Amino acid sequence: MAKRIRLAQRVVAESDRLAKDLAGRFNRAGVFVANLMGSPGAGKTALLEETARRLKGELRLAAIEGDLATDRDARRIQSAGIPCRQINTGGGCHLSARQILDAIAEFDLAALDCLFIENVGNLVCPAEFDLGEHCRVVVSSTPEGDDKPIKYPVAFHHADCVVLNKIDLLAATDFSLEAYRRFVRGLRPRIPILELSCRTGEGMEAWLDWVRTQRRTAAVRV
Amino acid sequence: MAKRIRLAQRVVAESDRLAKDLAGRFNRAGVFVANLMGSPGAGKTALLEETARRLKGELRLAAIEGDLATDRDARRIQSAGIPCRQINTGGGCHLSARQILDAIAEFDLAALDCLFIENVGNLVCPAEFDLGEHCRVVVSSTPEGDDKPIKYPVAFHHADCVVLNKIDLLAATDFSLEAYRRFVRGLRPRIPILELSCRTGEGMEAWLDWVRTQRRTAAVRV
Repeated sequence: MAKRIRLAQRVVAESDRLAKDLAGRFNRAGVFVANLMGSPGAGKTALLEETARRLKGELRLAAIEGDLATDRDARRIQSAGIPCRQINTGGGCHLSARQILDAIAEFDLAALDCLFIENVGNLVCPAEFDLGEHCRVVVSSTPEGDDKPIKYPVAFHHADCVVLNKIDLLAATDFSLEAYRRFVRGLRPRIPILELSCRTGEGMEAWLDWVRTQRRTAAVRV
Repeated sequence: MAKRIRLAQRVVAESDRLAKDLAGRFNRAGVFVANLMGSPGAGKTALLEETARRLKGELRLAAIEGDLATDRDARRIQSAGIPCRQINTGGGCHLSARQILDAIAEFDLAALDCLFIENVGNLVCPAEFDLGEHCRVVVSSTPEGDDKPIKYPVAFHHADCVVLNKIDLLAATDFSLEAYRRFVRGLRPRIPILELSCRTGEGMEAWLDWVRTQRRTAAVRV
């Protein structure tokens, strides 16, 4: 057992070291990096597609897409007009700092304003792994139900921003906005909760403003 | 590295041994056991609630609920009229055979016809862990998008039945039934795909029939 614990500690230490290395590279390049996590189908890729379409003339954007299999999401993001690199994890349930280090070799970070990392669709495991990002964004959606923050508290507890997508489906579900806000704020009292629909565009401006603000304040060129 | 591999092999071997032990207990008791997995909010609990309400007069049912936190789901299932035991995994991303062994100590298995295990909401990790079940059911839902089978192939590849929930939301989404069926059948050519809505009740009878058939044929009292 002691051996197993020492081995696990060594793996975690290596992962933390790589994440620190990444954070240093991001800051030296002055690029704002957001790590998006959420359930499969919450709309992480849709959010990045819409973000790319609306901000690409204003900010220099790029994305990294994490999926078990296929390059569908990277192709969607590229079609929206920004560079995107796909990582396939095989069966892996989250992105690792090592994978991000390999992926950014293809980008000129200093020529970017924002880099979005879309993690594997999973509301549990990605929250445990630092990728050197400035901010973590949890993307959830109304059809998932309003109780997800208290049933999957780890992801929300480590978030810097919560996006609630698919508000156009509110009337078709039993989702209570009041309960959802209360559950999120019970874990993170002052976190921004951005309610929007990538499909209709409602609420997108507040998200774009959050990105603009973070890009100005979170990424410090050193 | 060799040490790490040997340790991992020992953990897997122990997990497999416990799963075999569980399978033996389930067969000796003649209880049919289904392991339900899917994304957070796909509707696994809603499916079990509706199943409990509709079958509890006909079959002796019980359930085990796996969640990171809260006993909300167990209370929902109990309110639907069947015994249910909640497992909280802390941060754990899947249920383990050890947790199921502990949980079934509270049930008289021989007095049950069907035991439903609702795994942690996660379309990745639970597929790697055998719980001694007869069948695995992947529950997905239309708002998640039709491409989930090819993006999360491991869960679907190990499934014995696929439930597509929330077909009442089909018109409000871009979901293509034809694409979804093609993606599922590309992985599992003859698997049943049961399209239903726990909310409206549409399609529920085919699911109940699947449960009845499995209960008769899959669980062999030895």
